[in-house]
Amino acid sequence: MNAPDAGLLSLNTATVRQQWTLPQIVDGCARHGIRGIAPWRDQVAAAGLADSAARIRDAGLTVTGYCRGGMFPAVDREGLDAARDDNRRAVDEAVALGAHCLILVVGGLPKNRAGGIASKDLAGARGMVRDGIGELLGYARSAGMPLAIEPLHPMYAADRACVNTMEHANDLCDELGPGLGIAVDAYHVWWDPHLEREIRRAAAGSPSRLLAYHISDWLVPTMDLLTDRGMMGDGVIDLPLLRSWMGEAGYRGFHEVEIFSANNWWKRDPDEVLATCKLRHRECS
Amino acid sequence: MNAPDAGLLSLNTATVRQQWTLPQIVDGCARHGIRGIAPWRDQVAAAGLADSAARIRDAGLTVTGYCRGGMFPAVDREGLDAARDDNRRAVDEAVALGAHCLILVVGGLPKNRAGGIASKDLAGARGMVRDGIGELLGYARSAGMPLAIEPLHPMYAADRACVNTMEHANDLCDELGPGLGIAVDAYHVWWDPHLEREIRRAAAGSPSRLLAYHISDWLVPTMDLLTDRGMMGDGVIDLPLLRSWMGEAGYRGFHEVEIFSANNWWKRDPDEVLATCKLRHRECS
Repeated sequence: MNAPDAGLLSLNTATVRQQWTLPQIVDGCARHGIRGIAPWRDQVAAAGLADSAARIRDAGLTVTGYCRGGMFPAVDREGLDAARDDNRRAVDEAVALGAHCLILVVGGLPKNRAGGIASKDLAGARGMVRDGIGELLGYARSAGMPLAIEPLHPMYAADRACVNTMEHANDLCDELGPGLGIAVDAYHVWWDPHLEREIRRAAAGSPSRLLAYHISDWLVPTMDLLTDRGMMGDGVIDLPLLRSWMGEAGYRGFHEVEIFSANNWWKRDPDEVLATCKLRHRECS
Repeated sequence: MNAPDAGLLSLNTATVRQQWTLPQIVDGCARHGIRGIAPWRDQVAAAGLADSAARIRDAGLTVTGYCRGGMFPAVDREGLDAARDDNRRAVDEAVALGAHCLILVVGGLPKNRAGGIASKDLAGARGMVRDGIGELLGYARSAGMPLAIEPLHPMYAADRACVNTMEHANDLCDELGPGLGIAVDAYHVWWDPHLEREIRRAAAGSPSRLLAYHISDWLVPTMDLLTDRGMMGDGVIDLPLLRSWMGEAGYRGFHEVEIFSANNWWKRDPDEVLATCKLRHRECS
């Protein structure tokens, strides 16, 4: 299989979030010839929305996604309304940044004010997610901002996202209609026996629902559920195979590197991290 | 919903494996009025097969499952043959113990001699699992020992089991025929949006494929991928709902408590652990 086009590498800013501010990350991308970026809301807030948008535009970077909206389930109307309002602000920010899509991490079981899980009703949470996305879609369509459901690994079903398969995400897209698509993150979906089928199904929409493709690697052993993702090539995911499935389904977009790694990549010189992302994107993805 | 029948509580011996030998666990079950047990091979080997079988029989315990066979994928013929031979021994031991079924943890990606992952071919590993179960089934049928595929949580796909959903297990049962069933472990499958459907599908076989039901709980946060399972009621799984699905599907078997808990239950007085299992089985399962 051919190496991927280096021009399609994008950096999710979480990958060096412990070392650099957003302005530093933008400069780093420019220095390393990385053409895409996917910033997080807290980093944008810290640097200022207008300033961040200007820096990214001036650097000529494509914003492959904005992280993130979602977290729809709540214990009461007040919580649901707060999520709705916050998600509308996220849409506005994504528009200001010129993002290709707003990434949705949809949320898990409803939480109380203290952050504890307040209900075990998983089907109910999934209903709140459907309703929340449905309500947000009107706003997002008016703003011209595509929403991308990111199915998260089932180990996050309780506390981060109760949409855990491509099939579920495709079902939501079928139900809720235009303006909604999917962010395929290899780390979250590589294990799924229906992955190839559901990538093809997502691409069969018009336009294709394949709005983003995120890469990293699954380490064996994995020492932490949240912050032990691997650099491409250091784990067990057959990333060239997944890229081939995305390509055969017509996906021509960026390959966004998103690595949460408290004990390894977050501790390294960020210039080394970016150089490694480039190398491993070419050789192992 | 009614409380479960206390007579259906079974103890998977992993739950107190750090504190007690198998003879001690058998005595503990008798002392606490627990009527079922599911021993592990290493504990049986340490205590002796004949002695273990006699103790369990004398205590009047039902062996709700024998842990475990499986681990089919291998890098070469020699490894596949070794797995086959070891699995046949596991069938023989299960027969000697009078177990209701032999639990299969099917294995993940093939490993090299040093235990490292030797291939990223997940579809290939799944094929080896299918072939390995198919080959073992003839032997198990002759011995009259049902094999129970235990779908493991997707976070174990690489290193423990590449069958990660009830649907996949049902597909294997469809393909491979009689003598094969499923062990439903709440910890592994609670997140699956198709769980109720696939429990019903498993029960529609004749005889039902529902060979075992394991309970514990999913903690938030989960601090370790392997050894941080929760006691029923301490986590987020709606265990009464899952039990109702099993019951509506006609399952009348035991509820087997299986908790790997390095920093909590494995450190407690095992008599306290068994008393808590009984209490939480009644109140939270």
